[in-house]
Amino acid sequence: MSEMIYVGVDLGGTAIKVGICDREGRLLHTYGGPTESDKGVHVVIDNIEKYVRHIVEQSPYSWDQVAGVGAGVAGFTNVREGIIVLAPNIGFQDVPIRELLESRFAKPVKIDNDANVAALGEAWSGAGRGIENCVCYTLGTGVGGGIIINGKIYQGFSGMAGEFGHMAVVPDLEAIQCGCGKMGCVETVSSATGIIRMAKDAVERGDRTTLSTVDNIAAKEVFDAAKAGDEVAARIVNRAAFYLAKSMAAVGAVLNPEVFIVGGGVSNAGDILFNEVREVYAKYTPEPLQRGVSILPAQLGNDAGIVGAAGLLLRS
Amino acid sequence: MSEMIYVGVDLGGTAIKVGICDREGRLLHTYGGPTESDKGVHVVIDNIEKYVRHIVEQSPYSWDQVAGVGAGVAGFTNVREGIIVLAPNIGFQDVPIRELLESRFAKPVKIDNDANVAALGEAWSGAGRGIENCVCYTLGTGVGGGIIINGKIYQGFSGMAGEFGHMAVVPDLEAIQCGCGKMGCVETVSSATGIIRMAKDAVERGDRTTLSTVDNIAAKEVFDAAKAGDEVAARIVNRAAFYLAKSMAAVGAVLNPEVFIVGGGVSNAGDILFNEVREVYAKYTPEPLQRGVSILPAQLGNDAGIVGAAGLLLRS
Repeated sequence: MSEMIYVGVDLGGTAIKVGICDREGRLLHTYGGPTESDKGVHVVIDNIEKYVRHIVEQSPYSWDQVAGVGAGVAGFTNVREGIIVLAPNIGFQDVPIRELLESRFAKPVKIDNDANVAALGEAWSGAGRGIENCVCYTLGTGVGGGIIINGKIYQGFSGMAGEFGHMAVVPDLEAIQCGCGKMGCVETVSSATGIIRMAKDAVERGDRTTLSTVDNIAAKEVFDAAKAGDEVAARIVNRAAFYLAKSMAAVGAVLNPEVFIVGGGVSNAGDILFNEVREVYAKYTPEPLQRGVSILPAQLGNDAGIVGAAGLLLRS
Repeated sequence: MSEMIYVGVDLGGTAIKVGICDREGRLLHTYGGPTESDKGVHVVIDNIEKYVRHIVEQSPYSWDQVAGVGAGVAGFTNVREGIIVLAPNIGFQDVPIRELLESRFAKPVKIDNDANVAALGEAWSGAGRGIENCVCYTLGTGVGGGIIINGKIYQGFSGMAGEFGHMAVVPDLEAIQCGCGKMGCVETVSSATGIIRMAKDAVERGDRTTLSTVDNIAAKEVFDAAKAGDEVAARIVNRAAFYLAKSMAAVGAVLNPEVFIVGGGVSNAGDILFNEVREVYAKYTPEPLQRGVSILPAQLGNDAGIVGAAGLLLRS
């Protein structure tokens, strides 16, 4: 038997993506298919097994070389017990997925939530490669976060460390309510949802802007309009960047990470977002805490979830 | 040879306090004397040696039972190299204190800054006893912080983790500049210095308050006045508590600690401070992140520094 391989599973509401990584976190092969979450837990587990067995069979590796299977899930997970506590998109509640998959594969199985797994993927073989202490923001529908300390995911007391999206950074007078029930969370302004909301508000109140289709604005359009010189769009982008960066300044003072990695759809905005974020971060961070610290775009894109899931076998 | 003992040194600008702890962090004996920092590095080191040897000689333990000596210092420390980088109160700059003390004692020596050491003391045998993940705020002249993860001090990338006092929580329009050069830090409102400044401002602008002696207001007077029904003083206390709690809500979302420990002179205010802090913390923290999490007063008072310093031998 030669080198070991690590299988990662990205379990989403519509699709399951699987991949094979080597010991250094290089993603060697990928495969995937529908989740079929409407057909119930056992069909979803069947599908995971099918895709995993398929990708190994089609690869140059034997089943004996599989060190284990890691899975990242969009939802609340109990990492220690290996249970998906609640994953509304997949229709899972209290599913002992580790036990179910271990009995199928007869291999070690590890699970974690998607934000932690994406952070681990980036830390292991993306923008944080070689870095022991980093944090990762994922700016999508919400704002997710993950913390890597000494190369491993940091869970906190009840597995909820890294909830950067729910830091209350917007002052009360400007704050709106977040999905979590609290006011002024980062997620209300720096997620795609937050950006779209601000754009709709601007259009509805008649601001002078090139943004116009109230029903179908996407975050990308707001960034494109800002790049093209639309001042209303630019103000929205700046606001998203400002509160993101304020939360990062707070995270920096707490954790003093070497690298902040920012991924997710919103991060594709590029310089228009990152320049503002770096400026505001520097404005609110004492100079000694800035030294040697970088804010970098994620590198693995949608693969971060598969790679990080595979990494759970080595790094948790 | 029977049980080992752990010697802690609290190196301050005017006094050096030393103590002997057992393996469980119980403080068995204390001793101390002047720092004599005006006489230079070698006299200070002589004094540390003198007090440490004295306390061990006067105790029922032999020198062979000393497992090592830990020291906490008010200043910037390079923990890995064992160097005091800058301690203005002691007049130390780039002093290789670990090497100096190891050659005097022929025992292992560990150092760290006072905020980290106080956090470790409280975690080891104070309010955080038995807790693996906790954070500690020290509200004194400034606002210091320390993070304990898996029972040990978490240092961060460049040894600056836990700088809770420099989280920018005060909105720009109300913010003043902090000693660190940035605007709106927790330290500007929640430290004794911040509370005294707000009291002086109130007196100077002629607010209706029982606070009157502009030159010599102490934080304790502000708390006493607030307890006695002075509304201006109550507003100052609430403001100090509000921004402290906002920073704690952010720390909670990042680290998800089991316990927040609040020590230092300002924490002696008691319920008038803690009740407001708990209320504001709950206001800005999503419910799942509140579950099982406590905000507790420190228990060791001024001894936290000695105990934590001794703890460096076992917990770093």
